[in-house]
Amino acid sequence: MKTQEYYLIINTKQTIMTTQEVANRYYELIKQNKRAEIQEELYGKDIVNREPEHAASMGIPIVTIGLDAVKAKGKARMEMIEAVHSDYCSEPVVGGNFFSVAFGRDITLKGKPRMKLEEIAVFGVKDGKIVSEQFFY
Amino acid sequence: MKTQEYYLIINTKQTIMTTQEVANRYYELIKQNKRAEIQEELYGKDIVNREPEHAASMGIPIVTIGLDAVKAKGKARMEMIEAVHSDYCSEPVVGGNFFSVAFGRDITLKGKPRMKLEEIAVFGVKDGKIVSEQFFY
Repeated sequence: MKTQEYYLIINTKQTIMTTQEVANRYYELIKQNKRAEIQEELYGKDIVNREPEHAASMGIPIVTIGLDAVKAKGKARMEMIEAVHSDYCSEPVVGGNFFSVAFGRDITLKGKPRMKLEEIAVFGVKDGKIVSEQFFY
Repeated sequence: MKTQEYYLIINTKQTIMTTQEVANRYYELIKQNKRAEIQEELYGKDIVNREPEHAASMGIPIVTIGLDAVKAKGKARMEMIEAVHSDYCSEPVVGGNFFSVAFGRDITLKGKPRMKLEEIAVFGVKDGKIVSEQFFY
């Protein structure tokens, strides 16, 4: 009886998305309101989220670090929403390792009057993942 | 001899530009490379300029406050440039009180190799003036 050794070679070549590709995929998913999928598919585990300083007075943390913390923050925010009457996201603009979009929402938060929210968001991309997000409103 | 008093009434009604109008004017001027005019015409005197934290290692101040300081910073930067081979600015995207553009420059700084710079900029507008600018690169 003869033992023969085999070598299994697996090609692990991985395609890393460019910033433009990440921005395009983000836009594709946000238009379908697939926010959870955006986080699962595109966010890096060490994502850094930044809100404007004046948001602290609304009980919103200014800096949130890590995918789990950012997910929890998003979930808490979703639970505050009574109804989204309409929303939009502009096409992303790409510059180097960053892309930017404008968001608008006609929204009613629980126990609050209906209001319109508009903001600019800037996302940082590294190795095909979103590693930072900063909101301006 | 009789002295008669006159009252001079001047109508000082002033038109304050919306964020979209400021963004459009910014875009109009930047396409003509009228950077000094942008500062003179659109910037508020208390403008706050923010650069990314890693810029400190290149000797760039992270936060610059006030129009005079921002002008001086821009002038110092201009003096570092040997040649601008090409540049572009994307159309502005507006969200609430902010607008964003992507910049690109094919540039040679004095004593440095030619390089391509790409970035995202976010401008904050209040009372028809740009009151903040933040750059992502």
